[in-house]
Amino acid sequence: MIVFYSKDIKESTALLVDQEAQHCHKVLRKKIGDELFVTDGLGTLYKGIIMNASKSKVHIAQLEVIDTQPTKPRIAIAIAPTKLATRIEWFLEKTTEIGITDIFPIYTKRTERNKLKYERLESIMVSAMKQSKNYHKPILHELQKYPDFVNNCNVEHKYIAHCMDADKHLLKVHNQGDAIVLIGPEGDFTEEEVTLATSNGFQEVNLGDARYRTETAGIVACHLLNLSRI
Amino acid sequence: MIVFYSKDIKESTALLVDQEAQHCHKVLRKKIGDELFVTDGLGTLYKGIIMNASKSKVHIAQLEVIDTQPTKPRIAIAIAPTKLATRIEWFLEKTTEIGITDIFPIYTKRTERNKLKYERLESIMVSAMKQSKNYHKPILHELQKYPDFVNNCNVEHKYIAHCMDADKHLLKVHNQGDAIVLIGPEGDFTEEEVTLATSNGFQEVNLGDARYRTETAGIVACHLLNLSRI
Repeated sequence: MIVFYSKDIKESTALLVDQEAQHCHKVLRKKIGDELFVTDGLGTLYKGIIMNASKSKVHIAQLEVIDTQPTKPRIAIAIAPTKLATRIEWFLEKTTEIGITDIFPIYTKRTERNKLKYERLESIMVSAMKQSKNYHKPILHELQKYPDFVNNCNVEHKYIAHCMDADKHLLKVHNQGDAIVLIGPEGDFTEEEVTLATSNGFQEVNLGDARYRTETAGIVACHLLNLSRI
Repeated sequence: MIVFYSKDIKESTALLVDQEAQHCHKVLRKKIGDELFVTDGLGTLYKGIIMNASKSKVHIAQLEVIDTQPTKPRIAIAIAPTKLATRIEWFLEKTTEIGITDIFPIYTKRTERNKLKYERLESIMVSAMKQSKNYHKPILHELQKYPDFVNNCNVEHKYIAHCMDADKHLLKVHNQGDAIVLIGPEGDFTEEEVTLATSNGFQEVNLGDARYRTETAGIVACHLLNLSRI
């Protein structure tokens, strides 16, 4: 079943734009009167009929709800963008498949990249969401400076994963509820950054014995939080 | 700490070849008399001294054991190579970091690739092993036909993960000991393939609600087995 994504769903109509419109009209050659499935990325799957189609816009009408997925506890990962852009792209794809809800890019002392290609990352998330049959699209937030983020984060359960001998494993600490894990850059958080987090209520955790690359740590942390949902 | 990998360690000498020799001699410009660390990929870390160095070979002598990591239960994943080679490469990198011990590429009915670049994959594993401070290098086995593999697999705990409503989650089924999980191709195993596995003692399991891409399923399964080691 092919599903399209629209962030513009009103009453019983939906609008596909950009890649979604192109894929629908140019690649799959869908035309007026064809039936198709569309999700709002907020947990609802609709069925509708094409009223109008061009390579830049596809209008869908007569929408009816087919399925509504319940909202699960939040899984948020705050992560330093990797030097190599492909690594953060893989992180986004894999965690979207697993069920992440929020990604907060953070700029720490040792972060080596201060720009992200939001458009490209958004399309990776949309594609992974559709592939995994999860109709909740994660939210990729704006890049923030680490202290600003940590001082203002108000998720229920807050953790920081670093390489400096935290003795509790995330799986054994977290039970349920909304949660966030801070993942540091290559070279780890500084001691000052860890202290800032703990003074803001973040609990220090480890993710196992191995020393993971940044994006691997992010995937592992997301998967561990997701296990508390099963 | 930079660590080199040698599969040629005898008595108190080691030989670096190919990329390892190049990295040592050309990139890091190590020379005769320099001290360095080397692992055999079997769990042991040594310290030694360079006796001779060229861009294709570096001879190390006076090896002494610095650390020996205990052998943990086997984590084996049998997986169908992905159409896109980069996906299986990421699978190998991530699972090496997590602690996989054996990868068995399998050729199933719906597998779309029947060749692997072993040399390239080997170098990805060596690099991920060194990065993660795990001194056990996984073994990447030869590609086998699915029935041959399943009929002759004698790992203690055997599982098959597929998308056809297996009601038990791998985390809740597996406790400890050597284990293998079969991961199917895009489009999943056929029903006949699942039956062949169960008749050979493989237990059907799921990896959660989401529908994962092949390589994501492999990473998730490896991580779940690794959790039984903590």
